[in-house]
Amino acid sequence: MKIRILWQGKTKDAHLRALQADYRTRIAHFCAVTVEEIPSARRVSTGKDTKLSLAERCLMEKLSDGTKVLLDPRGREWTSEEFAEWLGQQAVRGTRELAFLVGGPEGFSTAFRKQADLLLALSRLTLTSDWARTLLLEQIYRGFTILRGYPYPR
Amino acid sequence: MKIRILWQGKTKDAHLRALQADYRTRIAHFCAVTVEEIPSARRVSTGKDTKLSLAERCLMEKLSDGTKVLLDPRGREWTSEEFAEWLGQQAVRGTRELAFLVGGPEGFSTAFRKQADLLLALSRLTLTSDWARTLLLEQIYRGFTILRGYPYPR
Repeated sequence: MKIRILWQGKTKDAHLRALQADYRTRIAHFCAVTVEEIPSARRVSTGKDTKLSLAERCLMEKLSDGTKVLLDPRGREWTSEEFAEWLGQQAVRGTRELAFLVGGPEGFSTAFRKQADLLLALSRLTLTSDWARTLLLEQIYRGFTILRGYPYPR
Repeated sequence: MKIRILWQGKTKDAHLRALQADYRTRIAHFCAVTVEEIPSARRVSTGKDTKLSLAERCLMEKLSDGTKVLLDPRGREWTSEEFAEWLGQQAVRGTRELAFLVGGPEGFSTAFRKQADLLLALSRLTLTSDWARTLLLEQIYRGFTILRGYPYPR
């Protein structure tokens, strides 16, 4: 299994950027991982938001092989243990590619959200994109430590 | 109103420490704020956990004047808007001191938790103490920007 993380735009905060690099290195001890910055897939403003934008269609095409997880405040809220269990199941099921998508301020269209395999919420609190990306990486790393029974440094 | 944040132990991660200092400065634009590192108020292991430890009794005494909020994974989960509203209500009600307590790995006793005015959960996910402290500060800052109608830099 390969983990592929895609987020819209750059991480502005230097400290959160450094933390992201750190967690990414730690995840790599468990699993192949890539992080890609993608341009904002700004939706076509049809008013209805029912169509994928061109950028979103390209993205879907690129990710067609794997499981697509979209970070979404209205998504499912899990504990770290539940998330780890799901992560383990993906590996067992033979998922080749596990893609996590983090939208920027403009986010993704409703049509795009509907095509995701999982909508995942990190918290009911509003998080900046920078924070959401960092917490996602931290929780993926934590998930692997839970699965392997490693003690997590508190 | 004065905000007083107390946490058990030191923040180990240098990046999260820097972020904490940054948010603290930003909060200070809106409200007087102090951050205190307190020693771990390790509970007396009576098995029942129904009594305050000596350290906890001293802490309660110190905070007797104000509203006590304890970060707790089993606590109430709010959106940032709900948290901001509650923060605003505290100011309106004339709360002199608003104390936020973040436990270390050992946490607080059940007896101590029962005496808190509010148990607040930041997420269903497990967060390290370092993370919880930083996110708390970020959300207090965010709360004030919501109350004042300031745009929050995303």
